Formats: sequence, C-alpha cells, structure tokens
Amino acid sequence: MEILSGVLDGMTLGTPILLLVHNKDARPADYKEISEKYRPSHADYTYDAKYGIRAWQGGGRASARETIGRVAAGAIARKLLRERFGVEIVAWVEKVHHIVANIDPLSVTRDQVEDNIVRCPDPVVAEHMIQHIDAIRKQGDSVGGVVGCAVKGCPAGWGDPVFDKLEADLAKAMLSLPACKGFEVGSGFGGTDLKGSEHNDFFRADLDKNVYTETNRSGGIQGGITNGQPILFRAAFKPTATILMEQRTINRNRENTTLKGRGRHDPCVVPRAVPIVEAMAALVLVDHALRQQAYNKT
Amino acid sequence: MEILSGVLDGMTLGTPILLLVHNKDARPADYKEISEKYRPSHADYTYDAKYGIRAWQGGGRASARETIGRVAAGAIARKLLRERFGVEIVAWVEKVHHIVANIDPLSVTRDQVEDNIVRCPDPVVAEHMIQHIDAIRKQGDSVGGVVGCAVKGCPAGWGDPVFDKLEADLAKAMLSLPACKGFEVGSGFGGTDLKGSEHNDFFRADLDKNVYTETNRSGGIQGGITNGQPILFRAAFKPTATILMEQRTINRNRENTTLKGRGRHDPCVVPRAVPIVEAMAALVLVDHALRQQAYNKT
Amino acid sequence: MEILSGVLDGMTLGTPILLLVHNKDARPADYKEISEKYRPSHADYTYDAKYGIRAWQGGGRASARETIGRVAAGAIARKLLRERFGVEIVAWVEKVHHIVANIDPLSVTRDQVEDNIVRCPDPVVAEHMIQHIDAIRKQGDSVGGVVGCAVKGCPAGWGDPVFDKLEADLAKAMLSLPACKGFEVGSGFGGTDLKGSEHNDFFRADLDKNVYTETNRSGGIQGGITNGQPILFRAAFKPTATILMEQRTINRNRENTTLKGRGRHDPCVVPRAVPIVEAMAALVLVDHALRQQAYNKT
Amino acid sequence: MEILSGVLDGMTLGTPILLLVHNKDARPADYKEISEKYRPSHADYTYDAKYGIRAWQGGGRASARETIGRVAAGAIARKLLRERFGVEIVAWVEKVHHIVANIDPLSVTRDQVEDNIVRCPDPVVAEHMIQHIDAIRKQGDSVGGVVGCAVKGCPAGWGDPVFDKLEADLAKAMLSLPACKGFEVGSGFGGTDLKGSEHNDFFRADLDKNVYTETNRSGGIQGGITNGQPILFRAAFKPTATILMEQRTINRNRENTTLKGRGRHDPCVVPRAVPIVEAMAALVLVDHALRQQAYNKT
Repeated sequence: MEILSGVLDGMTLGTPILLLVHNKDARPADYKEISEKYRPSHADYTYDAKYGIRAWQGGGRASARETIGRVAAGAIARKLLRERFGVEIVAWVEKVHHIVANIDPLSVTRDQVEDNIVRCPDPVVAEHMIQHIDAIRKQGDSVGGVVGCAVKGCPAGWGDPVFDKLEADLAKAMLSLPACKGFEVGSGFGGTDLKGSEHNDFFRADLDKNVYTETNRSGGIQGGITNGQPILFRAAFKPTATILMEQRTINRNRENTTLKGRGRHDPCVVPRAVPIVEAMAALVLVDHALRQQAYNKT
Repeated sequence: MEILSGVLDGMTLGTPILLLVHNKDARPADYKEISEKYRPSHADYTYDAKYGIRAWQGGGRASARETIGRVAAGAIARKLLRERFGVEIVAWVEKVHHIVANIDPLSVTRDQVEDNIVRCPDPVVAEHMIQHIDAIRKQGDSVGGVVGCAVKGCPAGWGDPVFDKLEADLAKAMLSLPACKGFEVGSGFGGTDLKGSEHNDFFRADLDKNVYTETNRSGGIQGGITNGQPILFRAAFKPTATILMEQRTINRNRENTTLKGRGRHDPCVVPRAVPIVEAMAALVLVDHALRQQAYNKT
Repeated sequence: MEILSGVLDGMTLGTPILLLVHNKDARPADYKEISEKYRPSHADYTYDAKYGIRAWQGGGRASARETIGRVAAGAIARKLLRERFGVEIVAWVEKVHHIVANIDPLSVTRDQVEDNIVRCPDPVVAEHMIQHIDAIRKQGDSVGGVVGCAVKGCPAGWGDPVFDKLEADLAKAMLSLPACKGFEVGSGFGGTDLKGSEHNDFFRADLDKNVYTETNRSGGIQGGITNGQPILFRAAFKPTATILMEQRTINRNRENTTLKGRGRHDPCVVPRAVPIVEAMAALVLVDHALRQQAYNKT
Repeated sequence: MEILSGVLDGMTLGTPILLLVHNKDARPADYKEISEKYRPSHADYTYDAKYGIRAWQGGGRASARETIGRVAAGAIARKLLRERFGVEIVAWVEKVHHIVANIDPLSVTRDQVEDNIVRCPDPVVAEHMIQHIDAIRKQGDSVGGVVGCAVKGCPAGWGDPVFDKLEADLAKAMLSLPACKGFEVGSGFGGTDLKGSEHNDFFRADLDKNVYTETNRSGGIQGGITNGQPILFRAAFKPTATILMEQRTINRNRENTTLKGRGRHDPCVVPRAVPIVEAMAALVLVDHALRQQAYNKT
C-alpha cells in the first residue's frame, strides 16, 4: 500500500489521505468464461443491465477486493476513535452455516478473535467451524454466516433522532458490504419474541450518578442516539456465490447455458468480513463523533 | 393536512411541496410525569444527553407521530413510481410476537392487507394476531413483530454498486423508523442456513429473451443493483416501549425511581408500521429511479 | 410569522425550526397578463422552459418574497455567531446607479445603515440616492447598485482549502440571490489594476504576538481560510426587471407582442438587499463555524 | 498522467475514474525559507492557523498545481457536454493589469485563444500583454487580470431556481480557484450603471418559433435557469502573491521579519487560468445537465 497524499513525516495534514493498493495478483484468464456468462447470484448481470459494459476481469467493483479501501480508511478512523474518543470496536464470527457460537459481546477481545483462522472467539466452536468449512471446500460448495460486533466507550449523545439515526447509518454501512443480506441491532429480529415488559431496558444510577441500563436489548442506541451502553449489532452474510459446481445460467445473448466456477475459491467469506465490519462501524462512528463535536463544543 | 406550497390547480410546480399536519390531539397532561422521569427503552434519556433539553409533551420527534411526514411524502413518491415507472409496493404484517404468517410475497394485494385491522393478508392468522394483541392490551403489556414488503415492476439496473447499494439505502430507511431493530433482504439471516449451491438464483431466459431467476433468494438485488425480479425485504419492530406496568428507571437528577405508563397505549405498532414501511421504500426507490434517469437518458 | 417547530419556552430544541410566513398580500389580478406573456429579464420564460408550468401569481419562487425565509433563518444564524463566536456582520448600500458612496467598511455601524431609507451609511450620498430613486420611479424605470458587507470577529482558521473555500461559499450565497449579477471579495475586480508588490498584504505581529496585516486586499480570506482580518465583500444587483414601460416580448405561444408592467413597482431593490446579504453571509459563516468546531474541538 | 480506474479498452465503466499525476518536478529546497516564514497574501499563515501543520514544500494544496485535477476531470466533462449535449465552452484572457481587450464573446474560437501564449484572442492586444508581462517579470513583480468565458449550446431549462442557481454554482466554482477574487455573469458590476429600460433583454421569436433575446445582459441565465442564449461570465484573478522582491512578514514564532521570493516565478497566472476556468465551467454544467436529465427524461 502506498500513501500518496495527506501525510507528512508521520503526521496527517488535514489534506485527504490517498491510500493506493495495486491489485498485483489479478488472473484475468480465470475470468474468461464469465466475460460471456453471468454467474448466478453475482453482480455480472446487474452491472451489464446498468452500465452496458462490465470489467469482467476480477469482477470489478463487485469483487470483495473493493473492501480493501474500506479497511484502510477504517484503520485511520479507529485510531481517531481510540485515541481521541476512547472508543473500541471488536467484531467476531458468531455463526457459520448451522454452527452457532454463544458469545458474550462484552468480554470478547481482539486477541481472542484473532486467535484462530475463522475469527470465532469460542475456540471449541471455532474448531467445528474450521472443519466444516474445510468439508464444504472439498465439495466445491460454500457457506455463509453471521458476524457480531460490539462498540465500547461511546458516550451518550452520539447519533441523530430521525433519518440519520445511528442504527440507520450502521445498517446502511453493513448492507453496503458484498454478500451482506441482513442487519440487526440489540435484540433485533429475536426481540420480536419478547413482550415489552421483558424487552425494556430499565435505567439505573449508581452512587456516583453514573447511568446504566440493567439489560441492553436496545444495543446501546435509543431513538437513534447512543445511551452510553455498548453498541451491539449483527450482520448476516450469504454463502459465497462462486462455487465450483455446474450451475444453470444465461450468456450475454440471453441464451440458456451452464457455468462451472474455477480459479480461486473461498468457501466462506465470513471470517474475512470481520475486519470489514469493524472498519465500516469505525467510519460511521467517527462521522457521528465529528458531528457531535460540531453540535456541542463543550 | 394542508398543502402550503408546490401545487397549483392539482399540478405539481417543481417547487418543494410543503405538507403540514397540525397535531390537534396532544395531551400534555399525560406526559407530566415523564418530564421528570425517563421511560425505559424510549428516547427520553438520550435526547436529554444530546440536547440538554427535551420536548417532553408527546415525546417530540421520538414519537411515531413523526412518521406522518414520511407517509405523506411517500404518497407522492408512490404516485410517481406507479404512473411513470410502473412500480408497485405492498407491505404486510408477517409476524406478531410468536404468531407467524406464511405469506407468498408475490401474490399479496393491498386489498388483502387492508382487509383486517392487523394488516396480515392471511385472514386466519390475522384473527389469531388480533386476539393476541387484545390479550396483551389487557395485561398493559406490548408486543412487536415483523413487516414484509414486496416491490414489483422495477426494471433491472436501478441502484448503485458500492456505498449506495439499493439494499443499503433500504436498510437505512427501515432502521430510521421508530422501534425498528432489524432488516433483511431476500434470504436474509435465514440464508445463512443454506449452502451456496442451495442459495444461488439461477438465471434463465424465456423464448422472448426475457431474463428471470428460478428462485429469488437475492430479493431482487444483486451487487446493489436490481435484477428485474421483485424486491423482497423484511423489517423487525420491537415491542412498544410504553407499557402500563410499573418499571424501574431514573429521574433527571439521576435518582433511582419507578414509572408506570398512562394515557393512550398502543400494545402493538406493527400494523401501523405497514404504510410507513411502504412510504420509506417508495422514497428510496424514487430517488434511485431519478438517479438512474440521470445516468441513462435512453 | 409563526414558529411551528423547534422552539420550546424560548429555547431551541435541536429540532429543525420551521418558520412560516403566510403571503397575505398577494394580488393575483396584477399578474393576469403575465400568465400569458413573459416579462423581459424575469424568470417567467425559463421556469416555463424547465417545468412546463408556472405559478404566475406573484412570480412564484422568482419573486424576492422568497428571500423572507433566508432572512428569518439568517436571524438565528446571526444570533449564534454573535453570542457564541463573537462575530458581527454589517452590510450597506455602496452604489445606486451611478451614485457611489465612499465607505470605510471597518467603521460602519448598523445604526448608520438603518439611519436612512436607502441604507447608505454616508448621509449626504444617501440623500442623493433617495432623490435619484424617486426620479427613476416617476419615469417608471428602475436602477440597480452594489451592496458592501463586512464581517468582524472571525478567528483565523475558518473555511476550507479547495472546493469549499470560504469566498466560494460566499460567492454562491450571493449569486443565489434574485437580481445578483456579481460578487467580489477584498480587492476584487479592482485588484487586477495593481501589481503584486502593491497588492500583497504584509503580515505583522504586535508586542502581544497578535497577527495582523498592514492592508486587507485579501478581504480577510487567504487560500479559502480566514486570516483573522475582517471579511470584506461586495455584491452587484441589476436594475429591477419589472418596469412600468412598454417592452417587446413574446407570449406562451411564442408570438411577438408587447408588455407593460403594472401593479406594485420597486424602482430599486438594492436597499432591500442589505438584510438579505447579511442573512446569507450569516448562514455561510455559521456553517463554517460548526465545521471548524467539528474539525478542532479545542 | 495515469488512469488507474474507471476505463476499460477506451470505454468508461461507470466506475469512478482515478486520474493520477505525480509531481515529478518538486524542488523542496526552494521552499526552505518559507517553512519558517509566511509569504504575504499566500495561504501559509491560514493553513497553519487551521491545521497547526503545513506541507510547506511546494505550497501543498494552496499551490496552483492543485488545479491539474480539475483540468483532467473537466476534460471528461467537456467531452460529455460536447458529444451528448452539444455544448461548447471557450474562455480567454480579457484583461492583464491595465491592458483590456475588447472581445466579442460569441465569435471567439479556441484556435484564436490558443494562437498566442497569453491566450488573448485579440492578437494586437495580446502582443501588448506579452510585452507588459515580460517587463513585470524583469521587475520581479507580478500582475493579475480577468478571464472571460462563453458557453454555447445549452438548451433553455438547465439550472435551479433558488439556492443552486446556475450562476451561483458557477460563482462558487470560480471563487474556488486559487487567486480568484471576483465573478460576474452577464452585465455584472457594469450592469449597475444601466437603468432597467436599458438593461432588460427583450424576448423575440423567429418564424420557426425559436425564442431568442435581442440583447444578452442576463448572460444566458434568468432566475437561475438557462434561457437558451450563450452563458457569459468573467472571473478576476489577483496578481500572483509570490514576487521576487523583499516584503515585510512574520515567522512561525510571530516575530516580524522580511522575506524575498526565489525559485520559479510566474509573473502572471491569468493565461494559465483559462483552461482551469473552462474545466470548472464544464464540471458545473455537466452536473446540471445530469440533474436536468433526472428531472425530465423526455
């Protein structure tokens, strides 16, 4: 990666920071067939429908390679969040296919997450996930899963009350990721199984007048604005569209045909999604931190 | 509702349209106690934390009354979508607490939805929901649920490939709604239970070279851009925070106390969310329709 | 004027503030002829060309009545600038037709400006202007002029270095005003008559290390960012398009015809532009003040 | 210049186009002294005031080198304007110091402009300008001037009626350029010397119902929206701040001192501003062209 602008002698200048990563490992030959055929559940067809032209080598912007810019920018956002605002973000793999880890979001550390290749902080479940992904790879098939994320240290008051609710911006950030199909904050879809009396987070104050909630089904956000509790959310990622099995599809002439994936094949992108989820969360939060600073100097 | 600008003799002028709805049924007396105490899982505390002041009568912008502007604006967007672009939007109640309706999104009509008070197009399940909500009301408690939505008639090519993916804008729109805790498009969270070979939507062309997919787990969007299939998504709404039971909370002085809701009490907002979900979907889609028109005149 | 939202008991709530002014003095009958004919140098033709429909009563958004919203919003911005940031804005009439006042921008007070109907702080020149405008009125003709503006109290560092230069945002704000045809900051067009050695503002520091410039041809902004000196700019307003004399024009069928203005007729809008210029300057500056606060908390 | 994204086989992809120009001719040694001292009327002091740090080598973003990105992007905008919308833009030098060319904006061609080094389409006046600039160079001094610009081929209806008036966006674009101190459209400041009866542009229709105006003091824009006549505007550029003469200034410690420019020295930037003015005009117009297309497909 090169830094082409915005930094001098290790200090940022206030100038936009241009981070450039050359794709040095493109293998256009792998993509020859898909220049003519549309991969099922990929963006080949929709790009052609929109633009009438498509950068078929490597998948263009529909490739998850696109996310490197998000992670690079997110690294700067995280630094600012940590050093200036005391905010820490950690994400982890919570589910791969039908294998679900039961994670306590408040105690997860980045070391635990990085301790295994599948980025699941429960080492026993992680081992199952790794074995299962390996078996799926051998089948030439793929699986998806769920990433969880916790943000600790946000003060109460960040966010916006109507259209730019903090959870709304987080939802947009997550759904902007390749393969993401769902987002939930706090109790999420599962919260609909509870009654109000079971779901509400009761406020309490300690002896030092610090406010907290007895539970955190709100996921740290109420009415679009942080309440000082950890922000908790999840994002669902579908199984990778590219599989090494023959599938029905059409070609650019709209003729029915079949296509069999080849080349590099990642049977489960969920572990790779972890740093991307963290990066997007950081970008959303740093925006709201600066907005809050504009709003309230003191 | 008054129209204060933008319309002359039944025609829009190109001028911003100002729709004004006066709140003629405010009952400030009902809110007296909550001017001093924070309702659990409501936005009272976070508004105070952010603004240091709060329009406690009626709940201010945290009240679902706020959504009337969305529905009014959405009505105009829907008209444009229908008459100019041939797009139809229909939403419905799919789940209330633990009662789940099995709905075919492609056959649901607005008449079916409006046929009962709970806005569930399955009349048998609707009846269960109505009875259950009634029982919950008598308990002074509340329940949440899930709204489904289908958008038919979008051509392939609407949307954007990276940050403004169509599903990302829909997610933001839904999570900007009061009480919304989750969003999923197409297969959503459930899609993580499938393998890639089970999840992929195979493309097919009919004899007239019309393209379709055999399944629609993508929910009509691939890589942020519509593929011409119906757009399908769901939004989860938590149980109403206001309940008529005593709850632990704090007051503005950060002293522990209790609060018991009073006044009007809606034990389940999910049926009311249906037109709001439709309105927000319409606003997102009309934006993308105009963007697409800017992009590609022909 | 009514305040419909955003204020409670004399305090702002953080909610958008809706200020509503009903136009109670519309005289549609005055505009009957211009529903069919295009007034020369007015926006009738261009509105029809863009929208295919036109709110001909009162001129719609092309009427200077539109600026009441700017002045109302600007009043709030000025309050914030004054009380929180110590910034004061004063504008005045500097030129009417060929009558030019020689004003020292640093000593002008609002009282001097408001002391006469033409808002020119030089009472002798003001008297000439008033008599001249009166003569022009009797001819059924109109004149334009130039408004000057000074902003005092801005600290160094407000603004942006490239596309959103402070002078760029001020220029846009002024050219967005009805009848405005020109903008200049500091030495402006006249500065092109000087050599660099005559034009440059030399920096000096006093004994307390306060920085100032010996001259202020930069108009308080260098490279898009304030330097702590007063911001000085001018805006030119063309003679009012509506005159009470017969003029050649066309009708909606694109047939040649003539039109003679009638109804209320303001032979010189420049004095009325003074508070509007101040309001727009305030709106631009308060935006940059908040951006600076976001950028640099301390 | 390298194209790093957005183009494949000579076709645009719909992807953002990244144009990269490396600064291969930086001479940091020339800037050694100004790392400690503030050049008068340059952005050194204001950058330090805003950012507390400054890329002193080459002047950072305050250098006119920054405009290469505008010109590169403008080249693409011009292509789109010409080929899709039939719009042509030409700018020229109209004034250098006290030497003024009397140019007919409607007959100027790019060939005439590019025919001499000072980019003034009047060859006699151009010769005077060249000799004068040469004399100024020998004095180590600098001069500024005025650039004129004409845009032909815009249909009626582009622009916006209130805040985003086309002239407002053009004004912002011009004032965002380094050294620009003024903008005027149509009759501009000079228009204030006329009475309404002298200033108004009378509409006429020819036998084919084509609409035109007898004069064009409006500069092709009325009420923020194009009227189909050529768009005419001017921008004033101050004399270059960098001169080779000793000037009073301060250093970073706020001590009074003197500074004498050295290194490369351009005594008049106005000819170089011509392609930059054209580029910025193109960027503004292509935005409005796309907005108009979004507004009105047919």
